[in-house]
Amino acid sequence: MPELRQNIATREWVIIATERAKRPDSFLDPERPLTQARPPRVATCPFCPGNEKMTGTPSFSIPMAPSAHAADENSRWAVRIVPNKFAALDHGADLVRVSHGVERMMHGFGVHEVLVESPLHNTTTALQTDVEVYHSLYAFRERGKQLARDSRVMLTIYFKNHGASAGTSQEHPHCQLIAVPVVPHSIRVRLNDALAYFDEHGRCAFCDMVQQEVKTAQRVIREGKHFVSFIPYAALSPFHIWIVPRRHMSLYTQSTDAELEDLAMVLRDTLARLYTGLRDPDYNFAIRTAPNHEPASRSFHWYLSVVPKVSKMAGFEMGSGMFINTALPEHSARFLRDVKL
Amino acid sequence: MPELRQNIATREWVIIATERAKRPDSFLDPERPLTQARPPRVATCPFCPGNEKMTGTPSFSIPMAPSAHAADENSRWAVRIVPNKFAALDHGADLVRVSHGVERMMHGFGVHEVLVESPLHNTTTALQTDVEVYHSLYAFRERGKQLARDSRVMLTIYFKNHGASAGTSQEHPHCQLIAVPVVPHSIRVRLNDALAYFDEHGRCAFCDMVQQEVKTAQRVIREGKHFVSFIPYAALSPFHIWIVPRRHMSLYTQSTDAELEDLAMVLRDTLARLYTGLRDPDYNFAIRTAPNHEPASRSFHWYLSVVPKVSKMAGFEMGSGMFINTALPEHSARFLRDVKL
Repeated sequence: MPELRQNIATREWVIIATERAKRPDSFLDPERPLTQARPPRVATCPFCPGNEKMTGTPSFSIPMAPSAHAADENSRWAVRIVPNKFAALDHGADLVRVSHGVERMMHGFGVHEVLVESPLHNTTTALQTDVEVYHSLYAFRERGKQLARDSRVMLTIYFKNHGASAGTSQEHPHCQLIAVPVVPHSIRVRLNDALAYFDEHGRCAFCDMVQQEVKTAQRVIREGKHFVSFIPYAALSPFHIWIVPRRHMSLYTQSTDAELEDLAMVLRDTLARLYTGLRDPDYNFAIRTAPNHEPASRSFHWYLSVVPKVSKMAGFEMGSGMFINTALPEHSARFLRDVKL
Repeated sequence: MPELRQNIATREWVIIATERAKRPDSFLDPERPLTQARPPRVATCPFCPGNEKMTGTPSFSIPMAPSAHAADENSRWAVRIVPNKFAALDHGADLVRVSHGVERMMHGFGVHEVLVESPLHNTTTALQTDVEVYHSLYAFRERGKQLARDSRVMLTIYFKNHGASAGTSQEHPHCQLIAVPVVPHSIRVRLNDALAYFDEHGRCAFCDMVQQEVKTAQRVIREGKHFVSFIPYAALSPFHIWIVPRRHMSLYTQSTDAELEDLAMVLRDTLARLYTGLRDPDYNFAIRTAPNHEPASRSFHWYLSVVPKVSKMAGFEMGSGMFINTALPEHSARFLRDVKL
C-alpha cells in the first residue's frame, strides 16, 4: 500500500509510491560516461590550470605547493573562488526597490561566484581525498563570512550542479555561491515552520530528526563525529539525502574547522557511494542555511541536501508542491550503506 | 542590469537575469519531432480506440456519434477518464494516521486517474478544436465535483505532462488528476499568503493582478470574455504562463459551462502559440485550486499555470526556492502575441 509521509521540520508531504517502487539499481544509467574517464586537463577549459586569465580575479583561494599540476606560479592553487562569467546578479547594483501595484521589484544586487574545486578536470567530490573536499568547504565558509560583513547580503546559497541534467555547462569540478539581497519566501516559510515546531516542543525539529535517525539507524548512510548523512523518512525523491550537523547551529559559517573536516569525510563518503552504487549520477547539492542577520536562531538548523537527478518533476509536483517518490527511503539507504568503496 | 521581481500573490522572488537573457526563439529545439507527425492510431497504445480493454472502467466519459474513428460501440467516446494503471495512491486505503517522533505518516488513500483527451494519437490541446478542449475541461470539472462529495478528498490536482522531458511515458494526448487526503503544505502556504494580502488590502491579490495585467497589456497573451492568459510580471521561468478567470472563485469546480467554453478557447490559443512559436515544446500545466472544503475563500483564486520545459531547475533553485529566469516576461509575451496562427 502506498504511504503519505510528512517531514516534521519542513511539513512537506510526499507520496511513497510503493506500487510504482523500483529496485535501487534501476536508477542507474549503464551508458553514462564516468567523470574519471575524462582527460585530467582540457586546453580550452576556463577552470583548468594555465587558463587562470580566462576567469576574473579570485575573491578567495587556497595555495598549493609547486607540483606537476602547477607548473607556473599562477597555477599553484588547490581551490579558488572566481566571479561567475554569466553572473545572475550584479555586485555593483544598488538596493533601489520599486512597488507599483503588481510590479514589485528591486535592482539585481548580489554576488555570483564559482568555486573551482580542483586543478584536475577529471575529478569530483566523490573521487577526491577528504583534505581536498575540506578545502572547498573551508573556502565556502571563509567567503561566506566575508560576504556576511556586507549588510546588503541577506542570505548566501552554496550549491553544486554535477552533470548536464543537473544544470551545469562546465565539466570541470566546481560549486557556486549566490548571495541575495532578500530572504527568499520559501526560506522564510522554512524558518517560520521551524519556529512553530520549537514553540510547540521546546526543541529544534532538526535536532530531533538527527537523534531519531541515528537511533533507528535504518535510513543512515554514514555517521561522522559531527555530521550524519541519511535519507530522510519523508525523502522527496529517490536517494534524496540530508547531511546534518549534530550540534545545533543555524548558519553554515558557524561551523568549526573540526566540524568541516568531519563534513568533508561524510560528504565525500556519501557521494562516493552514489558514484559507485548508481554509476556517477547527475545531482545537485545545496546548503540550506539561515539568513546572515538571524544567526542566533534556536529553531533553524543548517544542513546540506543532495538530490540525484534520477526522477522528473512534473505537473503534479508543480500543482501541489507534493512529490511522488518511487523508492522506499529505507531500501535506498541500505543500498548505499552496502556499496563497497 | 538584472532585476529581482516578486509575485504579489505568491510572494516568490525571481531573478530576471538580463545579462544571461536569451532571444525568445533560442528556446526552440529545431530537431524536435512534432506531435502532428505521429500516426493517428497506434495498435499498442492503451489509450487508442479499440484498446479500451487495456484500461479499467471509466469513471467519466463523453460519448461521440459513430464515425471513422469509432468503428465499434466501445470506441464511441470523445474523452474518457480511466484509472491510472500505475496509480500513486489507492482508493481502497483507509485514513489511518500514525505519528511516532520523526515518523509521521498516513496510509496512501487517494485517486489517480487519466483523462484521455482524444481518440486521435497524433493530436494535442494546441491542435484540437475549442469544442474538443472544452470536453476535457468539462470532464475534469464533473469528475472533480464527484470526488469532492467524498469527505476524505481534501484537494484534487488536475495536470498535464506533455512530452518526455515533462515526465510523460505515453504519447497519446492525456491529462491526469490526483485527489489527495491532505492539504499539501505549499498549498496551505499559498492560501495563507493570499489571506494576508486580502486582510491588508481588502481585495484578492489575483483579481488585482488580472486587472493590472489587462490594463498594462504588455504581458498579456490572449484575452477571452472570462479568462486572461499572460506571462506574470515575476514569471519563474521562460514562457511561464498563467491563465486566470476574471470572476473571483476559489475552486475550479465552481466554473460555469460558459466560463469553461471561454477557457477552452484561451487555453487552446495560448498552447497553439507555444506549439507554433517554440515548435511543440514539452510542458506541464496544472490547475491550482483551493481545497474542496474551503470553497468560499474570498482571498484565493484558482488559475491554470503552464510551464514549458525550456530551462532546468538546479542547485540554486533547490537551495533558495528562488528561480533565475533568463527571459524577460514582456519580450516572451510579445513573441507569443506575434505568432501567426
